[in-house]
Amino acid sequence: MAGNRLGEIFSVVSFGESHGPAMGCVIDGCPAGLSLSPEDIRRELRRRRPGQGGASTGRNEPDEPEILSGVFEGKTLGTPIAIVVRNADQHSADYENLRDLYRPGHADLSWEAKYGVRDHRGGGRSSGRETLCRVAAGAVAKVFLAAGGIQIRAWTSSIAGIDIPGPFLPGGGQDPAFDFDETENNPFRIPRRDYAERVAEKIGALKKEGDSAGGAVSCRAEGLPAGLGEPVFGKLDARLAAAMLSLGACKGIEFGAGFAASGMKGSENNDVPLPGGAYKTNNAGGVLGGISTGMPLEFRAAFKPVPSISGEQETIDRRGEVRKIIIQGRHDVCIVPRAVPVVEAMSALVLADLLLLQRCAGIQEPVHTKRT
Amino acid sequence: MAGNRLGEIFSVVSFGESHGPAMGCVIDGCPAGLSLSPEDIRRELRRRRPGQGGASTGRNEPDEPEILSGVFEGKTLGTPIAIVVRNADQHSADYENLRDLYRPGHADLSWEAKYGVRDHRGGGRSSGRETLCRVAAGAVAKVFLAAGGIQIRAWTSSIAGIDIPGPFLPGGGQDPAFDFDETENNPFRIPRRDYAERVAEKIGALKKEGDSAGGAVSCRAEGLPAGLGEPVFGKLDARLAAAMLSLGACKGIEFGAGFAASGMKGSENNDVPLPGGAYKTNNAGGVLGGISTGMPLEFRAAFKPVPSISGEQETIDRRGEVRKIIIQGRHDVCIVPRAVPVVEAMSALVLADLLLLQRCAGIQEPVHTKRT
Amino acid sequence: MAGNRLGEIFSVVSFGESHGPAMGCVIDGCPAGLSLSPEDIRRELRRRRPGQGGASTGRNEPDEPEILSGVFEGKTLGTPIAIVVRNADQHSADYENLRDLYRPGHADLSWEAKYGVRDHRGGGRSSGRETLCRVAAGAVAKVFLAAGGIQIRAWTSSIAGIDIPGPFLPGGGQDPAFDFDETENNPFRIPRRDYAERVAEKIGALKKEGDSAGGAVSCRAEGLPAGLGEPVFGKLDARLAAAMLSLGACKGIEFGAGFAASGMKGSENNDVPLPGGAYKTNNAGGVLGGISTGMPLEFRAAFKPVPSISGEQETIDRRGEVRKIIIQGRHDVCIVPRAVPVVEAMSALVLADLLLLQRCAGIQEPVHTKRT
Amino acid sequence: MAGNRLGEIFSVVSFGESHGPAMGCVIDGCPAGLSLSPEDIRRELRRRRPGQGGASTGRNEPDEPEILSGVFEGKTLGTPIAIVVRNADQHSADYENLRDLYRPGHADLSWEAKYGVRDHRGGGRSSGRETLCRVAAGAVAKVFLAAGGIQIRAWTSSIAGIDIPGPFLPGGGQDPAFDFDETENNPFRIPRRDYAERVAEKIGALKKEGDSAGGAVSCRAEGLPAGLGEPVFGKLDARLAAAMLSLGACKGIEFGAGFAASGMKGSENNDVPLPGGAYKTNNAGGVLGGISTGMPLEFRAAFKPVPSISGEQETIDRRGEVRKIIIQGRHDVCIVPRAVPVVEAMSALVLADLLLLQRCAGIQEPVHTKRT
Repeated sequence: MAGNRLGEIFSVVSFGESHGPAMGCVIDGCPAGLSLSPEDIRRELRRRRPGQGGASTGRNEPDEPEILSGVFEGKTLGTPIAIVVRNADQHSADYENLRDLYRPGHADLSWEAKYGVRDHRGGGRSSGRETLCRVAAGAVAKVFLAAGGIQIRAWTSSIAGIDIPGPFLPGGGQDPAFDFDETENNPFRIPRRDYAERVAEKIGALKKEGDSAGGAVSCRAEGLPAGLGEPVFGKLDARLAAAMLSLGACKGIEFGAGFAASGMKGSENNDVPLPGGAYKTNNAGGVLGGISTGMPLEFRAAFKPVPSISGEQETIDRRGEVRKIIIQGRHDVCIVPRAVPVVEAMSALVLADLLLLQRCAGIQEPVHTKRT
Repeated sequence: MAGNRLGEIFSVVSFGESHGPAMGCVIDGCPAGLSLSPEDIRRELRRRRPGQGGASTGRNEPDEPEILSGVFEGKTLGTPIAIVVRNADQHSADYENLRDLYRPGHADLSWEAKYGVRDHRGGGRSSGRETLCRVAAGAVAKVFLAAGGIQIRAWTSSIAGIDIPGPFLPGGGQDPAFDFDETENNPFRIPRRDYAERVAEKIGALKKEGDSAGGAVSCRAEGLPAGLGEPVFGKLDARLAAAMLSLGACKGIEFGAGFAASGMKGSENNDVPLPGGAYKTNNAGGVLGGISTGMPLEFRAAFKPVPSISGEQETIDRRGEVRKIIIQGRHDVCIVPRAVPVVEAMSALVLADLLLLQRCAGIQEPVHTKRT
Repeated sequence: MAGNRLGEIFSVVSFGESHGPAMGCVIDGCPAGLSLSPEDIRRELRRRRPGQGGASTGRNEPDEPEILSGVFEGKTLGTPIAIVVRNADQHSADYENLRDLYRPGHADLSWEAKYGVRDHRGGGRSSGRETLCRVAAGAVAKVFLAAGGIQIRAWTSSIAGIDIPGPFLPGGGQDPAFDFDETENNPFRIPRRDYAERVAEKIGALKKEGDSAGGAVSCRAEGLPAGLGEPVFGKLDARLAAAMLSLGACKGIEFGAGFAASGMKGSENNDVPLPGGAYKTNNAGGVLGGISTGMPLEFRAAFKPVPSISGEQETIDRRGEVRKIIIQGRHDVCIVPRAVPVVEAMSALVLADLLLLQRCAGIQEPVHTKRT
Repeated sequence: MAGNRLGEIFSVVSFGESHGPAMGCVIDGCPAGLSLSPEDIRRELRRRRPGQGGASTGRNEPDEPEILSGVFEGKTLGTPIAIVVRNADQHSADYENLRDLYRPGHADLSWEAKYGVRDHRGGGRSSGRETLCRVAAGAVAKVFLAAGGIQIRAWTSSIAGIDIPGPFLPGGGQDPAFDFDETENNPFRIPRRDYAERVAEKIGALKKEGDSAGGAVSCRAEGLPAGLGEPVFGKLDARLAAAMLSLGACKGIEFGAGFAASGMKGSENNDVPLPGGAYKTNNAGGVLGGISTGMPLEFRAAFKPVPSISGEQETIDRRGEVRKIIIQGRHDVCIVPRAVPVVEAMSALVLADLLLLQRCAGIQEPVHTKRT
């Protein structure tokens, strides 16, 4: 199948080019009978919207979702849910000089190698604007998950070279300085106000330089029953890794102790199971053998710096000749804060799908899906 | 779909429990007319086999593959290729005490939460022995790729806390100390003899302690045409990430500069395109926008330490009561060297599939697939 | 996966309820570089539109398609092509009395058994209006097929109990009375004017009675290369059978000699191959072993009479009590003429997909796909 | 995906060539905890085996199934169930003269057009022997369905031009002459002894002539809950149609009143719903809008005559020259009786899958799946 579809049961097809008429998605497989309103989608789209702080692009779009199908009298019908968002604030003329030039760090060249043709305006479908489709679909998945008591929260854990300490103290226990409620209060989605201030300075300096930054997003899902994930190729972590790496700027992912675990001894890394379903530690990040353990799911995704920078760069043109390029248009200095709701959305899509698939695992329905 | 199938066109279904009658796979979608012999599969299975060095388990199996279908007079027919390997050297009695106990760091508990039942002998299907099926299938994919001029090579780049320097010098250029041909000469699959010796000591010490180690595998594919990968959810890196995280012990993956890229500026990270199809640098790891650029594909996967260690550990039993556990049986101190051919196999499966999918991208066949 | 997706490579997701805001589809996997205009889609939608003759409903909608994505400067991009058609002329109030009643012969009851909820207005998603999505998608597939020299033509071969003789004389040879060009000249899509007149009378009489009729559609595809179809479960005829039976009113299908072949002897039924790729006869209908033979593909699909009739009928209501029902709204006396473009569209979708899949059958591309 | 996989959740991959080492299948997605023994599979394979009567081939194989995985201590594990049956009684030399000749009515030519290569021995993978894989997989599906109270029964309803009257009298009510228990007592699987005797004579005569016959199989599934089927492309009847047409000799299918319904008026064809979930009639064959109604599922599939006949036939060879052909080997006069268990198996596979998919239709599990 072509690559614009994600999920087996709770599945989504994404469509739209950055400067085409509209972006959108079709969700097929959302269970019937779920209460769903446009506001559920609007709320998440608003979190993804640009123009929320020093780090993001000046493009300003209302991003108003229209639900074209699948919902009747406030409830899902079990039929496909099509959601469309019109593109409103394109400045396509900004891109006219890119028709024959390939921007460094962008997918212009590889995209053209693949398809022979390319919509050069704003990156076409390789634009970050495509994540809007994911957030819209993910918003529906979140409503479904919330009905089952599952909550997903992501935050900026590294940005512009500044690492934000996590929720746990090195010796164990919660760090009181980590305040998840702070996350949506600052433009960087950092759960610590002190760090948000330091980052603001750094990002401001980069903006002046005309340069850009990357970072990392951490994500945590709570309320997951044990048993989600389809061994051996559809493992929970495999599915999430694919979902995150399907984001254009994502260059890596790690679960639980992740890369650090690769340097540990077995005796250090093993999480000891406790009576009642919990574990003494969670180095595994809530997934063992590709199946959720019932502990919080924890992973971290790395994002490269925004490739669109203001300074002059070298590149080649369509004829293969060396050229200078100046990138116009409005660009984020760092997309990591805006990636936070996208990471949540992608996680929600994967989890909703695995939750439904788990209904098929036994000859009797597992008890935990009853709550949904 | 249940989780034992990988790939859209060149697809594989894996089957078998560690202590059941046999392991195997069925490849559906391998193109017709490819020359294929049992030796092509045997050669790769031999690389995965245990008992090759200080790091691996004492289990000794011939792992002789039988091709049950899909090949006639030395050529593939275009029909499913079924490959079976009998399990021969099981010591199931070693596992009898694990019927009601859950091993820390293993998938025993999560697996049982999922399915309600579990084959406790050797981990059943969550055993590392399941990777045999992947290596068998990957061997066929490698033959297909080789016919198209694509070569995949992996190596141990970190083990037991010791990082092995990569092929490139920090300032650019090849490091002459990195000798890929050395990789298969030492039991750790390290491309430097000096590091292999240091690692031998460290692993020996861990073995004495009854402890275990993790590490990382680096992988590089050369000869890939630009254009592989199916945006937006079937991106080359997304597909590879899922393939690697589908390995039980894998806890993370990064492409090109990976996590390090997240701390760079855009001006540092952007790879500048050169006339002729190459780039000045390869921070992207050969993939931009989820599509191969034509530069070498490069990624690194992290593996946690082997959870089976000799010492007494704490755990719970089926009734939820705290118990002591001593793990018997034969176990690797570190599976990283044996993961090397598995990482190659998984990469080959993904690339073979994407190479075939790429034949469908345009109204005219792209020229580069003609070589296959 | 949920059931609103068809196809592996050239795939389509259909969405929309009859009285919701819009109907539409997303095509994923249409090759890049194909010339495509809204008129290509409009032309086919016009053929499906009601109000074209004595047999069809009075509902009158412009059915103007909007292409939201996937086409840039008149060429397909290789990205998803989303097409939306607004619902304009709903008379939802006509259906208010059906909120708690189940119409005989309709899917009201079974749909509610499945999902628990139902959009009662005009049948919701089980409405014949959903075929609009298929025709829109099929129009794109037709453009792709036409570029490869493949033409699909369907016609009404039976209606209201009147069988229309086929293109061939019983003894062999073409029947000159069969004039395919006549098909689009009469409201019944019958390739013989004499029969069209007889049918007009019969349909007129049924309309007065307040009753309805069924019939059959025959379909023929020419220009197909030999080799299409994916044995064993994705056979050409298996895929087409699923496509036709996915139409709500379709109750049967037969290929070539079909049910009549089941009464023949082997010596009568076998088609003898001739030098040059043709066969003496085409009892097989152009498909052997599920693979196209290169002869014209021929099949016939049966459609039941329209279940919405004017007279009073018996049924039950939501509480399970017996009730009388009078169906209001505007309904076709017979949908068979309007099914003709739908059958063509579904055939085109299947063939486009199999044509792309066939690119993956060999280690070298087969020659015949070069023409596309 | 290549064509050897059927099903979304309860899925099967089939493999094997008629004269290769073995036939087999891998079932992925069978729920865990189901009691399953080799005898469950052996029983169904025995029904498919040749040599049971005047109509079938002299090839005699034990067809002993070996379960390689997925079952532990008599219960399914939720992991893939691989089943292998060795090919034992091949007479490959019988086929040597067919290496360069294409048998009329067989898939030899179309298969070679597709793949470029072909296993000419016994039809390779296009052999009827491939249905063994389906029967083995279907046997597992039947066990799963039986646990949910669903029973599937097929029978020969037409053979060699002789139609066997169905279970219902034209005026309504059961025909006492129709005795389903008789079906397995005669070699033709006809539920009436009188007809079985007439057929024996006819088939005997055809055998002497060296000719062959076709026929039809009727199938009925009882105990199905209302609600199965995935609109709009995964409808119950669409899925079954694809399953039946995936059988090499099948040339048509009809549901309920089928082709006859196309000549009825709406007032005649509509099934009136009754209190309690039943309908006055079952012209729909138990499926409305592609969803099971709760009435018995009823369909009929047409099979062409066996193409292998004894007499001399005309054909072409690999160089495209006209040749005479005499087909040796052992062949059925009519495969319809042996198709009966195959039709049941294919139905079981489709129903098992749809039953699992239905678990995902609502936010709460539907009550009827609790019985499984």
